[in-house]
Amino acid sequence: MSTKPSGVITITTDFGHKGPFAAVMKGVILNRFPDAKIIDLTHEIPAQWPPEAGFWVSRSYQYFPLGTVHLAIVDPGVGTERDILLVDHDNHFFIAPDNGLLARMLDNADDATVFKLDPEALCRLDIPTPSMTFHGRDIFAPIAAEIAAGRTTPVAIGKPTCSWIPAWIDEPEVCCGKVSGVIVTVDSFGNLISNIDEKLISGMTEPVARIGGHKIPMFPTYGRAKPGDYLALINSFGVLEIAKAEGSAAQSLGTERGAPITIASR
Amino acid sequence: MSTKPSGVITITTDFGHKGPFAAVMKGVILNRFPDAKIIDLTHEIPAQWPPEAGFWVSRSYQYFPLGTVHLAIVDPGVGTERDILLVDHDNHFFIAPDNGLLARMLDNADDATVFKLDPEALCRLDIPTPSMTFHGRDIFAPIAAEIAAGRTTPVAIGKPTCSWIPAWIDEPEVCCGKVSGVIVTVDSFGNLISNIDEKLISGMTEPVARIGGHKIPMFPTYGRAKPGDYLALINSFGVLEIAKAEGSAAQSLGTERGAPITIASR
Amino acid sequence: MSTKPSGVITITTDFGHKGPFAAVMKGVILNRFPDAKIIDLTHEIPAQWPPEAGFWVSRSYQYFPLGTVHLAIVDPGVGTERDILLVDHDNHFFIAPDNGLLARMLDNADDATVFKLDPEALCRLDIPTPSMTFHGRDIFAPIAAEIAAGRTTPVAIGKPTCSWIPAWIDEPEVCCGKVSGVIVTVDSFGNLISNIDEKLISGMTEPVARIGGHKIPMFPTYGRAKPGDYLALINSFGVLEIAKAEGSAAQSLGTERGAPITIASR
Repeated sequence: MSTKPSGVITITTDFGHKGPFAAVMKGVILNRFPDAKIIDLTHEIPAQWPPEAGFWVSRSYQYFPLGTVHLAIVDPGVGTERDILLVDHDNHFFIAPDNGLLARMLDNADDATVFKLDPEALCRLDIPTPSMTFHGRDIFAPIAAEIAAGRTTPVAIGKPTCSWIPAWIDEPEVCCGKVSGVIVTVDSFGNLISNIDEKLISGMTEPVARIGGHKIPMFPTYGRAKPGDYLALINSFGVLEIAKAEGSAAQSLGTERGAPITIASR
Repeated sequence: MSTKPSGVITITTDFGHKGPFAAVMKGVILNRFPDAKIIDLTHEIPAQWPPEAGFWVSRSYQYFPLGTVHLAIVDPGVGTERDILLVDHDNHFFIAPDNGLLARMLDNADDATVFKLDPEALCRLDIPTPSMTFHGRDIFAPIAAEIAAGRTTPVAIGKPTCSWIPAWIDEPEVCCGKVSGVIVTVDSFGNLISNIDEKLISGMTEPVARIGGHKIPMFPTYGRAKPGDYLALINSFGVLEIAKAEGSAAQSLGTERGAPITIASR
Repeated sequence: MSTKPSGVITITTDFGHKGPFAAVMKGVILNRFPDAKIIDLTHEIPAQWPPEAGFWVSRSYQYFPLGTVHLAIVDPGVGTERDILLVDHDNHFFIAPDNGLLARMLDNADDATVFKLDPEALCRLDIPTPSMTFHGRDIFAPIAAEIAAGRTTPVAIGKPTCSWIPAWIDEPEVCCGKVSGVIVTVDSFGNLISNIDEKLISGMTEPVARIGGHKIPMFPTYGRAKPGDYLALINSFGVLEIAKAEGSAAQSLGTERGAPITIASR
């Protein structure tokens, strides 16, 4: 199995938009691969919280061309001994620090081939000694460029591995017909997005979600609930979401990332 | 009249920068049209407020190459019965939900040809059944890609129409030499941007704007007023704007989007 | 010395992400040079504060391909008599208002050739009369496009000059083994980034930084300090930075841009 690169690179970070941090990564990429097509997935992952980056990368990659390189950099351990993972999975490439970011996806991906970057490969790729604090620019970006340009592959610069730092968030628990999960992220509308996949709910009759003391019924889409009412729905990324019609569920419920949520038949 | 696509696509949304919502639209576009040039117009339209999206699209499109496709997605009715408009106007293409977003532009555009998307066309374009909650990714993006790639046109996938959901904001009122409008949006500097076009003011002698109890004289540019003073000016998009020299008019006046503003000769 | 353009253009502004301000600049560029590769350096420079824009441009340009055009627009004097600088330096091009933005870089760049834009050149480049308030779109963008496309050069449209408006922030002061500087900017993590170059510290033994009444030791990277502890380090852009391990130094210290900072041997 060898994935052919598409020339597209996505970047996911917790850098925000202040300063040139994502931009200089793009400069480094264009220096090595002038035809790269670079897409910002998001730079607003909460600071140093890898699980949200992994969540969005694993739920988004399928919308990009086969052979896209997905860079995800939420890296509190930069400059310490942490490894860098290179993954070939479902005809896409993934590069991220080995800190749990990709763990949930890898745990569930039978076909993934996973490598730890061999530090000696940096020299072969003409990558100079990296800074201690910005591997996104000094290691991840040049490697992404080389893979996207088709000049190297994970297998050529990594050592195969079957182990990685575990995920920071537990899988949803299924017990007595009830599914218990957590809110992984909140979008700009204040919708609360959980880690509960639609597969876990499909058998329920008239499922009702419970969060923050509220019982919330399911609807197919936002516009079907009365303005101001809470609704639960399977969102466009295939997971359970709590919204407030024409409002912000996060604000009204006073609930945030990390909050527990359950769902069960009425 | 048939507009030739430039390969450029602009995207305007209220998605903000949290999460991969705009990014997956770009992935879908690149899947169908790898040479697309995609420009973010803005993703910071206030949540579910179409008029600002329409205002910026109608005031900005002319700066892009002829044949650009302008996607605007502020879509509180996603998944309900609302239509999707496809427009060919002034040698540009526009795609938006039929919820008033484009109404002001269409009301004033004699040359525009307007279509409602024929849902049966989705099948012909190999667009799979869309999700109930993210038509930006599942319908708008693939259609924009197909039009930008020159493989389809509004007339080929839409039904001609002369009616659309009306605009959410009234046109400025002209009465007894006074023009009354509203603040449509506030920029990052705190400048208050109105819907009053310069044409409505051109005949006035020494015009003075009134907003929030203040009488504000006109200047040609920011640097001509004393630091700390309010000024009115015709901004670079051709509408009346209230600014504060070296400060934020929005903050000082305590005024926001939706505020009434009038202007008349002294 | 003549720099060959790479086709890449970076844009640095204080426009934020509300409204289409950066986007219409890109539209203007694509109109003149459809193959331009445009990278947003950052649009979150504090409103009308040129020094931060100059700091980031001068510390970032080297990561882009030789021959990149760097546009920086923080322009409180737009529409007044201020000049526009065109610079050829270190095989990169720079375009900015003459308001101190580029002064620090130019003061330290022996090889730079600096020009003031000749207003008569606008006509030769078919640039229409600009608006009074948005030269980014009406002058800077078309000139960047023409230079990036290789159709003009700073020398062809500017008049050589050796003087420019001085920098708004003093160079760090070195006295009795102590270096005194200021915090130039704060990143999204709350790290405080100073104007003190690593060269000024290299001779010190066990240097200790002082800011806001705290004495802060140096570490090589974030992960080497205890969670919650402050640390000083030379960051990836070669300047002294104050961080808090797994936290925000800006928030904890109550310190912001402009704060004085010193460093000396223990």
